[in-house]
Amino acid sequence: MATYTPPIRDMQFVMHELLGVTDALKAMPPHAEIDADTLNAVLEEGGKFAAEVTFPLNASGDEQGCTLDKTTHEVTAPKGFKAAYAQYVEGGWPALSCDPAYGGQGLPIVLNQCLYEMLNSANQAWTMYPGLTHGAYEALHTHGTDEQKRTYLPKLTSGHWTGTMCLTEPHCGTDLGLLRSKAEPQADGSYRITGSKIFISSGEHDLAENIVHLVLARLPDAPQGSKGISLFVVPKFLVQPDGSLGARNPIWCTGLEHKMGIHGNATAQISLDGAVGTLVGEPHKGLAAMFVMMNAARLGVGMQSLGLTEVAYQNAVAYAKDRIQMRSLSGPKAPDKPADPIIVHPDVRKMLLTARAYAEGGRALSLYCALLIDRELSHPDEAVRRDAADQVALLTPIVKAFLTDNAWLATSHCLQVYGGHGYIREWGMEQYVRDARINMIYEGTNTIQSLDLLGRKVLADNGAKLKKFGQLIVDFVEEEGVVEAMQEFVNPLADLGDKVTKLTSELGMKAFGNADEVGGAAVDYLRVVGHLVFAYFFARSAKVALEKQGTGDPFYTAKLATARFYFAKLLPETASLIRTARSGVQPLLAMDEALF
Amino acid sequence: MATYTPPIRDMQFVMHELLGVTDALKAMPPHAEIDADTLNAVLEEGGKFAAEVTFPLNASGDEQGCTLDKTTHEVTAPKGFKAAYAQYVEGGWPALSCDPAYGGQGLPIVLNQCLYEMLNSANQAWTMYPGLTHGAYEALHTHGTDEQKRTYLPKLTSGHWTGTMCLTEPHCGTDLGLLRSKAEPQADGSYRITGSKIFISSGEHDLAENIVHLVLARLPDAPQGSKGISLFVVPKFLVQPDGSLGARNPIWCTGLEHKMGIHGNATAQISLDGAVGTLVGEPHKGLAAMFVMMNAARLGVGMQSLGLTEVAYQNAVAYAKDRIQMRSLSGPKAPDKPADPIIVHPDVRKMLLTARAYAEGGRALSLYCALLIDRELSHPDEAVRRDAADQVALLTPIVKAFLTDNAWLATSHCLQVYGGHGYIREWGMEQYVRDARINMIYEGTNTIQSLDLLGRKVLADNGAKLKKFGQLIVDFVEEEGVVEAMQEFVNPLADLGDKVTKLTSELGMKAFGNADEVGGAAVDYLRVVGHLVFAYFFARSAKVALEKQGTGDPFYTAKLATARFYFAKLLPETASLIRTARSGVQPLLAMDEALF
Repeated sequence: MATYTPPIRDMQFVMHELLGVTDALKAMPPHAEIDADTLNAVLEEGGKFAAEVTFPLNASGDEQGCTLDKTTHEVTAPKGFKAAYAQYVEGGWPALSCDPAYGGQGLPIVLNQCLYEMLNSANQAWTMYPGLTHGAYEALHTHGTDEQKRTYLPKLTSGHWTGTMCLTEPHCGTDLGLLRSKAEPQADGSYRITGSKIFISSGEHDLAENIVHLVLARLPDAPQGSKGISLFVVPKFLVQPDGSLGARNPIWCTGLEHKMGIHGNATAQISLDGAVGTLVGEPHKGLAAMFVMMNAARLGVGMQSLGLTEVAYQNAVAYAKDRIQMRSLSGPKAPDKPADPIIVHPDVRKMLLTARAYAEGGRALSLYCALLIDRELSHPDEAVRRDAADQVALLTPIVKAFLTDNAWLATSHCLQVYGGHGYIREWGMEQYVRDARINMIYEGTNTIQSLDLLGRKVLADNGAKLKKFGQLIVDFVEEEGVVEAMQEFVNPLADLGDKVTKLTSELGMKAFGNADEVGGAAVDYLRVVGHLVFAYFFARSAKVALEKQGTGDPFYTAKLATARFYFAKLLPETASLIRTARSGVQPLLAMDEALF
Repeated sequence: MATYTPPIRDMQFVMHELLGVTDALKAMPPHAEIDADTLNAVLEEGGKFAAEVTFPLNASGDEQGCTLDKTTHEVTAPKGFKAAYAQYVEGGWPALSCDPAYGGQGLPIVLNQCLYEMLNSANQAWTMYPGLTHGAYEALHTHGTDEQKRTYLPKLTSGHWTGTMCLTEPHCGTDLGLLRSKAEPQADGSYRITGSKIFISSGEHDLAENIVHLVLARLPDAPQGSKGISLFVVPKFLVQPDGSLGARNPIWCTGLEHKMGIHGNATAQISLDGAVGTLVGEPHKGLAAMFVMMNAARLGVGMQSLGLTEVAYQNAVAYAKDRIQMRSLSGPKAPDKPADPIIVHPDVRKMLLTARAYAEGGRALSLYCALLIDRELSHPDEAVRRDAADQVALLTPIVKAFLTDNAWLATSHCLQVYGGHGYIREWGMEQYVRDARINMIYEGTNTIQSLDLLGRKVLADNGAKLKKFGQLIVDFVEEEGVVEAMQEFVNPLADLGDKVTKLTSELGMKAFGNADEVGGAAVDYLRVVGHLVFAYFFARSAKVALEKQGTGDPFYTAKLATARFYFAKLLPETASLIRTARSGVQPLLAMDEALF
């Protein structure tokens, strides 16, 4: 019953009108020749794939889930997933932003990010199969040996093989320093790995010929804790020197989790019984190597939630226009009907606009961030690359945590728009809520993201990275502050910027006295900074919309209305967050553990 | 894997130390003799029933759901539900607060409310079978004819028969004025009712001998809209003059909804094919009669969410004490272990304390409200009864909407405490989240509750009811404002009270100019008033706790810590809510419907 229309127009707005992507790409040699038409054509085709191929499998995939044959340890994905994946591979989509040296198309990350938003709107569970693959590709591309690259990258690029990240064990998720899986060196330079992993997304399935597991384990001489973890690549089927598949490696799916959502993705318990692997990167430095994959994955999780926010919004709007119930408090708006469509009711609009603003703000931020990654990877000037990397480091936890928390709010609001029907499976809304819930947890819980932001990204360098981003805001405020029509946007932005500066130094001082103060304020702090970033992009969007309003294109009218809504109804959350962030950790620590 | 311990101590605190229930009951003739021991004994026994009989069926009931035999139209509840219900009936629990004239035990509502919190913690889906029954009992007790009372009340009181509310139709939920079911008068004074109902909780099942449906339908001469709706009682099996069951009435379950949660309760599609019913109350005044049931049901929904908040809290605490992961930022707290229990981390505590404070605040408010209902029903002084009724009218939408929104936040936080394990079914947390989601929707969506509060309960009488409650706060502030130890609680309470007064008159003025302003501000307004009410009860609780701290009972230390947490970390939400409430409806109405 659900519908999905790829938001091509808003993606084009962000890419071409807000970020000037093609100009930015001109400075990056590998992308210098890309024009807007190419980008737009890929958007159209990608949107078509998402809407026509994977979206129709979303509800049925949720209903069926994955099945494990306990004898063969083989997993069957929901009906249609395999064929859709074959079509995805056939269309060359896995290769979109991969290295041409391994068969990739070498298109920019910012475009791939658009594709992933659409794929996640269409079907988050399905999209996790290629999504994890791309993560494995990046880890091997950065840290693999030449032989590993030759062996795995072409197949991961084409999508004929998929990838996983095997980190979590039953007793450790956040705290990987506790992990116990062991790797025994073999005479031939390979390793035999033994251990139990859980929560392995796309861990086993029937979509691809081979599955390339990236596994964290300890070498025999490993130091304790997180500094004694190494990364290994462990294929499901061993790869022969000629590239063909050899023996089945003893890495088995021993169970599938029964989850709240993302039923279409196989969340596997994995047992390694002396599975053969090779070392990726340096011994004992696996966590750092894995973090290449993890950082990409964190942005990917943000895209999952952006996708869910958008599709939930679209469906709730359609329902709110169609469903008639009660009269507007200010008098009938559809006097020819027995009641008004519920979109006339202010609170219904508030719920819809919340989802809309979170989608538009999230899209601007995440594409901005993706373009920074392109710059980090492909700009010839090292200072520019470093600057981009700093901004990516700062923004990654915000994309992950702010967008996923927002999607939880937004999808829940969109469900509420449907009234009782929102609670019924056939309407599809409750699946979006269930699917959205995992995004706040995996790839580092949102608490971990907030500690990463405040502790590692902000306080550890005395706010240097934050100041870099803040300078963009200061410049914008200075430039636009004199434009009367912009004041409604610039003034609250400038005000919030000042408050963030003040709050940051206050928290820095407090943390100096008591490290727990970071943990007490971090979650509130991340949301405040998230709003600052959103306010900046909404103000910039409003500037573009004001300039182009004369074109008569209602797109700009809507963009302005959404920006105004954002400043009036969502940004004020910061008033409370700043208060609670400032009220310190003491109210959290006062109660003795035994009294809980 | 989940556990549940009835929170008897906190219930006793609220009843005996905060509200002085037995003293209050002394003024009500039917309850004048009840002592604390009786109340405590019932609490103990009720808690035992919940924890031992229905709690073990919660996860399995969710897993199995209900099944409909499409040939016989009979529904089978999950395994164990029927036996548990038989034990519930056997124990006399349905009769607890029912009228002794019909076999009830005549105990106060405030006690029944405690029972319902515990039953809902244990198993919300199961509890809806007796819960709806109690609603049907109340509607018939208030509006039924003598014959209807004689026929139905003894069996509803004993629990041998259960009840339902048949309101919603596919095209109308909130807007019952649109409903189409028809009632044709018969020569014998009965009616033949025809129509389709959906979302009928406990609508068909195998727990009871008979099901007493209360059905809204239109008489042939009915005026259009909500003033043309009548209420009928339509039993599944017709009742013979001797009280025995006769023919099967043609009221059939034609389908069961597939829902996000509360799988153990049968949410039935009901078809009435000329089913025989009798009129309850006056013709065309069915909605008013149904509202007796509805108001009780709204408080009942608040208790469902209170129950879920409590049980989610308890489990998350157990997990947070047991699960070790990472070191405290301020240094190891469990140096003998490889990592600290996660309860040392400030944000984990924040999530736990949020759930705890919402449970404690919700318990104080809902038991206060229940005691008011006892007063409304049983106090000899009409002025006292009216005053109690006014307060109940004001507080009902707050109990319904504030407690259910809080439970959504709280259960989601508690899930998050578990990390990835929270997303896995076997741990039980994700079921609490799924079950909690419906409570924000049924018995009037939370938007409807907020419109009821701001439009009907506050602005319609120029704030008279609100002032009544406000006077309690003013008196308390005046009395306690001089006590130094109380100032940390009294000052923010007084401050918020002033702000609510100001906000209320501001919204009243605005609404005078544009009725849509009510719809634009109502949801924010309800949460602000909800916090005011919670702040009042936390301040009163703190007063008791401060007085009794000398006893050395750690219960009071914990109560104080929770109150302080509430004032530091939850109440500040009002800063944002007041801003957004004041920013008006214009940002919500500005965008043209076509641009969404």
